[in-house]
Amino acid sequence: MMDDKVNSENPYSRLMAIKKMGIVKNYDEIRQKSVAVVGIGGIGSVVVDHLTRCGIGKLIIFDYDKVELANMNRSFYTPKHARENLSKTDAAKQSLNEINPDVEIIPNNFDITTLENYERMSNILQTQGTTQQDVNQTPRKVDLVISCVDNHAARHAVNQVCLELCLCWFESGVSETAISGHVQFMQPGATACFECAPPLLVAEGIDEKSIKRTDVCSASLPTTMGIVAGILSQNALKYLLGFGEVISYIGYNALKDFFPAIPIQPNLTCSNKLCVQRQAEWAATKEKMVSEAKAAAPAPEKKESAPSSQFAGIEIIDESGEADQHFEVTPFLYRQYQEMTIEPPAAKDKEEPSESAQTVQDFQALLRQVQKKGE
Amino acid sequence: MMDDKVNSENPYSRLMAIKKMGIVKNYDEIRQKSVAVVGIGGIGSVVVDHLTRCGIGKLIIFDYDKVELANMNRSFYTPKHARENLSKTDAAKQSLNEINPDVEIIPNNFDITTLENYERMSNILQTQGTTQQDVNQTPRKVDLVISCVDNHAARHAVNQVCLELCLCWFESGVSETAISGHVQFMQPGATACFECAPPLLVAEGIDEKSIKRTDVCSASLPTTMGIVAGILSQNALKYLLGFGEVISYIGYNALKDFFPAIPIQPNLTCSNKLCVQRQAEWAATKEKMVSEAKAAAPAPEKKESAPSSQFAGIEIIDESGEADQHFEVTPFLYRQYQEMTIEPPAAKDKEEPSESAQTVQDFQALLRQVQKKGE
Repeated sequence: MMDDKVNSENPYSRLMAIKKMGIVKNYDEIRQKSVAVVGIGGIGSVVVDHLTRCGIGKLIIFDYDKVELANMNRSFYTPKHARENLSKTDAAKQSLNEINPDVEIIPNNFDITTLENYERMSNILQTQGTTQQDVNQTPRKVDLVISCVDNHAARHAVNQVCLELCLCWFESGVSETAISGHVQFMQPGATACFECAPPLLVAEGIDEKSIKRTDVCSASLPTTMGIVAGILSQNALKYLLGFGEVISYIGYNALKDFFPAIPIQPNLTCSNKLCVQRQAEWAATKEKMVSEAKAAAPAPEKKESAPSSQFAGIEIIDESGEADQHFEVTPFLYRQYQEMTIEPPAAKDKEEPSESAQTVQDFQALLRQVQKKGE
Repeated sequence: MMDDKVNSENPYSRLMAIKKMGIVKNYDEIRQKSVAVVGIGGIGSVVVDHLTRCGIGKLIIFDYDKVELANMNRSFYTPKHARENLSKTDAAKQSLNEINPDVEIIPNNFDITTLENYERMSNILQTQGTTQQDVNQTPRKVDLVISCVDNHAARHAVNQVCLELCLCWFESGVSETAISGHVQFMQPGATACFECAPPLLVAEGIDEKSIKRTDVCSASLPTTMGIVAGILSQNALKYLLGFGEVISYIGYNALKDFFPAIPIQPNLTCSNKLCVQRQAEWAATKEKMVSEAKAAAPAPEKKESAPSSQFAGIEIIDESGEADQHFEVTPFLYRQYQEMTIEPPAAKDKEEPSESAQTVQDFQALLRQVQKKGE
């Protein structure tokens, strides 16, 4: 496993110091984690660099572009990669192997938005999560998906495959003006999916292609990309290793160093039927977990805790009998839910629109605010 | 100058798009800017990477370390640099030249904290600011100093040289636990200097060496470093090119994605006498600028503006005669002040401690809060 010796020859000494200091209890478990990164452009290239330097077990990367000189304003690639006419996946594998040869890099050089390639991606995410460090070498799902794509078709593909496979994922993006960006965490059923609360562009029915001006390519800054990528990979680490709090949604506006954060609830009337089904499954599982935790808990006190529950981390604040309302969805609970959900129950009938629909409005108001600050 | 053609061969097309979109009026002026970066470790290496990809005119880098395998968890360097036993400055120059050969990189491989080397640094900052793109090739000061050092002795040296040369600079750092960090902007006389509001460690008289445990090196994460470096280089761009707002102080706590921002006023009782002198000079200059702007302004209205003033950007909101209180210190005004300050007036006598001293307390309370959130 990871060496924690303090000497100048050990590439992991400064990382293992985090464990010694008690910040992260299990830093070395990162060697058993597998992450898929879709899109390794301005944001994704920085994310794979960070995760490689952190010593992640396996990185499965997807991109279909070649390196061009026009990419040089963002991190990671060099003009040499462009001169050699390398695909982004091959250039990334080359660079990442140089940075940390311990990390297994699996390049996939294809466009995920065609029907055939969507199936290829789905199959890879479902079976290639096993790392060289896993004791059990049977095929398994990846631990996390990170989306760093630059168009809505690809975001929809990632959203759909993660809903189908019950995979947690991070969505990210930067504005065409290069001065704002965002990171969002998605847990199928537990948080909004990409279609529950789409970006303004989609919500307002604007065709993405119609806003592209022929004489102006979208702007980009390595600084904005670097900040968004840093927040993204930091939250991926928190999710994978279970420390700190995983953000729900955070925006970034460069002009004012403004970082608005907001939790985004799932939309009960989401247009994606599979999302609605996952919400019902999650509600049922949550109910089951709460009642099991209650049954296992000692006689009621002012503030109950459920130390003997199989679901570590559940805290029930139940003074009114409405435990469900206080039940906190954490990524760690969610992982247990995923492990339980082998045969998902059938979707229940939809309920009437609830306050979560309002939350979508709030979210869109926030997005407008972030974009306005940028003008 | 910079090419703004939109094609895959142009490394500046995505940057010049920022100008076409009207976000930054003068993006191409970046080719005439010179920046000194002191310390090119975890934060500094990312900053020089960003500025190089942005096409900065000249980068003067200072570091005295060699690349070690233990640096691999942070961005930029590779094991190859460590095997070749390269200094950080040489490794950085090599990598930066590969990324963007247009940027002039001046490596300085020495420790700035010795008396002799302090003088060398001072001389370099004072005379080597001229870039290859400058029409006038006479020696001049650098446009900005960025400190990415990891100890207080070096921070004090940067603080002192910037007070002496009236140079604006950014201070930055990350905690030993790797989960919090900060960026602070310093304008001699106009904002706090490093000694006006030192970090808790210094304020509370703790010897830096006494907290180093022999068995534990300080922790570091490429993610935390990347976020702090991104905020730092983004603010450097805003300062150099005059867009958006330059942050005064921003903290970052990784566990909660918490980014507290606070303006830090200079401390009238700062222990650094030169800082107190610069404060007096700035007060005098500000007064002069306000009265000249008033004289040049048209007959008083509800809200006055000073379009004909030599100090573009001054907005006077003067209903009570206390114009001074509403006078906003912007980096752009400050640059004009620097150009005026050829013969600084003698320091005035100190006034009694004012609310700025309280601000230092507020600041330290904030620092405690950021560190606490991290525990």
